[in-house]
Parts: sequence; C-alpha cells; structure tokens
Amino acid sequence: MGDTLRATLRARRQRLCERVAAPVLLWSGCAPARNFSANRYPHRASSHFLYFAGLPLNDAVVRLEGGRLELFLDDETPAGALWHGARPTRDEFAAAIGADAAYPLDALPARSPDAATIAVQDARSLQQQCQILGREVAPAHAPDGPDRELAAAIVALRLVHDAEAIAALRESAAITIAAHRAGMAVTPTARTEAEVRAAIERVILAGDATLAYTSIVTVRGEVLHNGSYGNAIAPGDLLLADVGAEIASGWASDVTRTWPVSGCFSPTQRAIYDVVLAAHDAAIAAARPGVEYRELHVLAARILAAGLVDLGILKGHPETLVERDAHALFFPHGVGHLLGLDVHDMEDLGDLAGYAPGRERSDRFGLGFLRLDRLLQAGNAVTIEPGFYQVPALLKDPRRREQYADAINWERLADFRDVRGIRIEDEVLITTTGCEVLTAELPTAAEAIERLVGSAGAV
Amino acid sequence: MGDTLRATLRARRQRLCERVAAPVLLWSGCAPARNFSANRYPHRASSHFLYFAGLPLNDAVVRLEGGRLELFLDDETPAGALWHGARPTRDEFAAAIGADAAYPLDALPARSPDAATIAVQDARSLQQQCQILGREVAPAHAPDGPDRELAAAIVALRLVHDAEAIAALRESAAITIAAHRAGMAVTPTARTEAEVRAAIERVILAGDATLAYTSIVTVRGEVLHNGSYGNAIAPGDLLLADVGAEIASGWASDVTRTWPVSGCFSPTQRAIYDVVLAAHDAAIAAARPGVEYRELHVLAARILAAGLVDLGILKGHPETLVERDAHALFFPHGVGHLLGLDVHDMEDLGDLAGYAPGRERSDRFGLGFLRLDRLLQAGNAVTIEPGFYQVPALLKDPRRREQYADAINWERLADFRDVRGIRIEDEVLITTTGCEVLTAELPTAAEAIERLVGSAGAV
Repeated sequence: MGDTLRATLRARRQRLCERVAAPVLLWSGCAPARNFSANRYPHRASSHFLYFAGLPLNDAVVRLEGGRLELFLDDETPAGALWHGARPTRDEFAAAIGADAAYPLDALPARSPDAATIAVQDARSLQQQCQILGREVAPAHAPDGPDRELAAAIVALRLVHDAEAIAALRESAAITIAAHRAGMAVTPTARTEAEVRAAIERVILAGDATLAYTSIVTVRGEVLHNGSYGNAIAPGDLLLADVGAEIASGWASDVTRTWPVSGCFSPTQRAIYDVVLAAHDAAIAAARPGVEYRELHVLAARILAAGLVDLGILKGHPETLVERDAHALFFPHGVGHLLGLDVHDMEDLGDLAGYAPGRERSDRFGLGFLRLDRLLQAGNAVTIEPGFYQVPALLKDPRRREQYADAINWERLADFRDVRGIRIEDEVLITTTGCEVLTAELPTAAEAIERLVGSAGAV
Repeated sequence: MGDTLRATLRARRQRLCERVAAPVLLWSGCAPARNFSANRYPHRASSHFLYFAGLPLNDAVVRLEGGRLELFLDDETPAGALWHGARPTRDEFAAAIGADAAYPLDALPARSPDAATIAVQDARSLQQQCQILGREVAPAHAPDGPDRELAAAIVALRLVHDAEAIAALRESAAITIAAHRAGMAVTPTARTEAEVRAAIERVILAGDATLAYTSIVTVRGEVLHNGSYGNAIAPGDLLLADVGAEIASGWASDVTRTWPVSGCFSPTQRAIYDVVLAAHDAAIAAARPGVEYRELHVLAARILAAGLVDLGILKGHPETLVERDAHALFFPHGVGHLLGLDVHDMEDLGDLAGYAPGRERSDRFGLGFLRLDRLLQAGNAVTIEPGFYQVPALLKDPRRREQYADAINWERLADFRDVRGIRIEDEVLITTTGCEVLTAELPTAAEAIERLVGSAGAV
C-alpha cells in the first residue's frame, strides 16, 4: 500500500472523528461457509471497514477514536502458515494501513465500551459484535441509537468520493469495459448465454478482479435480475449483459449493454434501442450538482414515453403518461443508484444513503423502485440505466391492462415482440461543473455496438 | 428432470426410510448476503437436500417419512416474478421431484414434531431449523441425538454412489478436464496466475457449471490452500492448478495438475514430478474394494520416500522414513478424500463420513491430515492426490530440522529449489473388481503434459 493511500485513509478517519465523538469499532467480517466449513465463499470484507482500513482483511476489527486507529487481528497460526502460506504479521498489516497500535482480538472487549458500530453481513461476526459490545446490534437496514449517528456520518463521507476512490472506480470501470467488449466479440460464435458470460467474466478474472454482483447475461432481458445462463442464443435475439468488476480493494463497477446476437439490430430492436439511448443520454446530459436525482429518473421516463408515443406503442402526452406511471409498464425500475465500494453503495444501511433525510420511498408504481432520491453534489458516483422490457408479470396483469387500456396500442406493441429487454447503463461521476461518464469508452450508439459484436479486433 | 432421476430419488428416499424411522426434515438453505442483503453469494443448496430432492431450490424444505415425500416451498411473489421472472409453481416443482404433497412454508411447524434433521450452513436457515423443531440443532461437525442417527444413515447411503451419481460425477469431471486443458494451452502466453485461472474457469462457466471450491492456480504450489492469483508467472516456474467444476445438480469434481510454464520441465522438476507420479500411480493401482484407504496413503508416502531416497534428498530406508513421518516434511497432507456432492464429501458432518465408526484422527504428523480412513467398497469415489512441497513453515522449523537431521540431505535438497510444489490429483471410483479413474482422459505423464502446454490443438 502506497503513501498516498495511507494518507487518504488517514484523512477519511480524520473526517469521521470530526463527526463522531464516540469510539467506533468496524468489523471486516468473515467469509460464510458454502457447503461445509472448510469450503467457504470468497471473502468480501465489509465496505465500511474497507473505506477506513483499506485492506480486505479477514476476521479483523479496527477501532477509531479521535483520529487514532487501532487494529485488532490475530496472527496466523502455525497450521495456518502450512495451509495458507506466510502472511504479513499483525504489526506489518498495522503499518500498512497506518494504525497507531495493534492487538490480538482478545484485547477487543477491553477497548469496546460505548463504541458505535455498523452491523456486518456474516452471522458469526454479527454475533461477535453483539457479544463484545454487550448489546444488540441491529442487523443492516435499521441502524439505531449510537450506531445510527455513526451510519449517518459514514454516509456523509462515502457519498462524496475522494481522489483515491475515483481512481479506484476508474480502475474497476476499465476492466469492466474490456470485459463487455470481449462478450460482444464472442457472441456471434457462442451457442449459449453461459459461453458469453464466461468470455466476459474471463477478462475480469484475468485482471485479478472479481464480480461486484451476480452477472446478468441473457437473451431474456425482461427478467430483470436473471441469474441463470442456460438459454441457447440465436440470431434475432438481443443479448443483455449487466456485469461489473470489483477490484481487490473492493471498489465496484456496474455496466449494462444490450447487443444483437447476429451483430445487426432488427428495425424494431433498433427503434426501441434508440429510444432507450435517448433517455440515457438525456439523463446524463442533465446530471450536475444541484439537480435532484429523482428528476433524472422522471426525465428519462419522459423521454422514453415520448419515444414510445412516436413509435405508436403509447398513446397520449408523454408528461401525462409519466404522471400516470404508464412508462413503468415498460421501465419498472429506477434510473439508477449510488456506486462506490458497493454496487448499490451503502445499501446495507437501507435507504439511509439513498434517500435524503426526511424522504421516503414513494408507493407509486413508477417511483417505488427508485433507489436514490438526493440532490446531486460533486463527488457523487451514480449509475444511469434506463431500460425497456416486456415483462409478462406486468403486461399480462389484467388490472394493469384495464388501468392503462387507453394508453397502450397493443396491436402496435405486438410488432416489437423481438424486443424482450434492453438496458443501457453507464457510471456517472458528478463533477463541480457537470458530470463525467466513467464508462464512456464503451460505446452506446447502435452502429458502434454492431461494429463491436463479432469484430475480431475488439477483444 | 427425467423419469430416471425421479426414480433414483425415490430409491434413495426408500433406502433412507429403511434406516430411519423418525420423520426427516431437510432444508435447502438460502444464499448468504455478500455486502448487502440484495447482493448475495450464488446459492448452493445443502448437499443432503440435493441428494434426496434433486433440485437446487432456495429456501425449501422436504419432509421424508416412510418413503413419502412432502415439499415445503413458497410460491414466487408478484414482486419476485417481476425481478426474477416466472418460475415453476410449488406444485410443478413437487411433480418434478416426485413429491407426494406440497405445502407453503408456514405449514411446516405442524409437520415437524419429532423430526430429525441435519444442520445447514447458512445462519438464517439454521435459526429456522431450531425454531421449527423447537430445539437446538447442533451446527455441522457434531450432529447429536436423533440427528446423529439420521446423519449415520445418510453417510451409509451417500458413501456408495448409485448410477445417477456416477453419471453426474462423470459429467462434472468432463468439464473439469476440458478446463485444465485450456489452462495448460494458455500458460506460455499468460503473464499472471490470474490469466491462467481465468482461462480455466472460463471453460467451467461456459459449460454452465460453477466452481466446486476456490481454485488454486499458482506458481507457489508450496502454499497448500493458496487462494490468490496475483503472481507473475515465468519460464522456469511450475504452475499448480487444483480446480474442479460443480454441475447444476451439485455434483463436484476435483483435479490437480502441475505443469511447467515454459512447456518443458527442468531436469530437477521432472525428477520430482516422476516421483510424485509414481506415488499417484501406485496408490491408484492398489485401490479396490476391501483395501483400507489409509493403506493407500501409507503406500503413496512410501513410494514418495523411496523416490526421494533415490534422488539423494532423503536418507534411510523408505519404510522407516515413513514410520518416522519424514515423508510428511514434503507431503504433509492426506492422499485424498471422499468425493460426491461435496468436494470433501459430507465434511459438514465432521469425520462421521470420512472415518469408520470407532476410528479417530491420528495425532501423528504424517497422518493427522488424512481425511478418509475407511475400508474401501464398490461405489466409493475418492481422490488420489499425493504431492511434494517445500513449505518454509515445515522445512525452516528448527524443531523439525533437528528431529530429521539424519534423514535429510539439505545440500542435495538445495539442487531442487525450482520445485516449490507439485501435486497430481485424480478422481477414482471403486468398482467391484478394482477401480476406475474418472479423470483418466487428462494425462499425467510428464511428456504428455509438456505436449498439452501451449499446444494450440489442446483447447
């Protein structure tokens, strides 16, 4: 770890102690068991731990108070050294992260009184949190009491990315862009979704990164969180790939592209693609400090509705259609979310990060799935990811068909049956004057996508 | 799911109810959260559930009593259908696995009295097990009371693979063999361990399978459970790859090969490789019903010791060296383990499956890590995986250096410094007359390995 990162970590801790007087304990967590205890899922350290400690340690705790950092970690046992090799000692790790002191884990109870914390995901560490603090630690989604004040302070910090965070996001995005290119290039010769997924993830693994979330690589794009890859792919299909790398320090990436398996969009696919792209471009063009993220969502919805009106699928005035949530029949999710160490950054805290104080999720069909409702400020990183889907659970719902009977031309919609799902997603960093698309190197224009699919030079 | 599999599942359940009178509840378990609750690790259903129910369901329970099967599973919610697509209904799943009845999960408490169970790995489901059964369910490693009788019955069944299981193991092995070939082929042009790992895992993902365990792909083979891929690779290095596929039904594969990065073993590497291979071949040649698996371990150790004596690294009589555990300085682990739905089959039950009743782990340096100590019988699947490693934690340990001062020629050993770690691992099915190597299509001979490395025809 370099001096710059060490200085960054120190600055983050300093900013935290300016906001939180109580001592803070942050657990790294442990990898959960898969099918037996010696066969574990890959370890993913808690993002809050990573933000202040920088290293993806396993079964470690840091204590922050008044700018001082203490590391609690047990040294490798002799058996551990046999199976896992020599690793740095506790003191070496402590030096690497700029800790002022380091102790074994059994020294933790004595340093725990009155500490605030954030619940980790793995059950074993959560139990340890409760035992050591001698109180309930509310599992994620509802930090309470002293922990709530800490959570709010961490949100304030992590919402605004520092230079080190932005560099890490760029690194993660670069791997993801290369991975999507590889997926496009292999598609015309691939027989299954699994083969395309494998080509994409290969690039991420080859970059010594991992997946920030379960990849979606499917010709059934209308299944929003499709996590299986068993379908055959064929010319005429659109393939939707929502895949993002996560680099070793934990920083995530999140990109979606939709491309034709044959390398050529059909006229109907291209028409809808261009509508989604117009929504995507308009939302990004409007993203800048002082703008409500929710307005970007509504703007994307409006552009989408207008495009569908132009195509004869929706009927009426775009603005009215959006007010009636008619767009949500085809675009049922939010336009995006925070991005950082987590692909939905800080979603372990429920809506504490995504929603400004005093705001709550809407119960409107067209807004309830919006994960972010804040005034944008420089340093925020968000995704912009409008889409168009033909979801049977929505379009065949008799209640909705009746509700929107006057808004949809079903006969015209039937012309677009080769468009199951399209999403175009980029990562957007809010700058002082506007925004920067961190994933701009991966084209979005239909012609450019067509050129990349199957082009040998693209890998 | 075909009729054959349904019949197999029925036969397995019938055999279980012949052994266990009490009703049995088996949980599938749920995927644990990674960094927030909506971002989960890939779901891996409990192997005991898979063995009797056949489908990798999430958050499901089966009840077995007197040959009758009941499925407990909640239907997809409307929101679930939006995000995850339509899935078969409870009744469709029930028909697929040949269940006699199907209920929602809230019907479970009424059907739970006096049921035996096996603890699952994920904390949420384990908690549910305790709540619904109204008693402690000992987490893995120590099934107790009624659960112990059930565990012993399941072990008796799962130790002896039926035709369906053997077919599944073959399928998993075939993907793994192709994956290793791809890894060998890419090695001479790869720059890092990560690139080789990516080429190997790509084949597994492209086959719509997953990894049975965290891959080991490293030029530092002396780190037995090396789970990182950050090293550069260079001509002169040996690359050790211990990678196995797991197919959708859960059946695992487990294969290790060690190959020269350049495509050519150095004379010292080849000499040690041939010693390890001789140990591997001898153990497999001796594997048949009625043989103690422990004897295969001792045999491999003896052949290894003899080879190291011939090379001038060890001094003394091979048999005496093995009695003194001198071989374990270079071969500190067991010669293999059970293989099935789990890569270490049924290791969630501690040593209940691996060790015959009344047997316990030895505290001897050369035997304590042996995971299997049973009389082999037809239908067992085991791995045979001897190795040679130069582990600093062992070879630089002053106590061991003194203990084995007369047994090792340190000067001669220094000639072999380019051999960090070699392991050769195959899957072996015990047949009625001997054994069959399930992974025999992947060569082990040094010359054949050299031909595959970098050979374009090998992918």
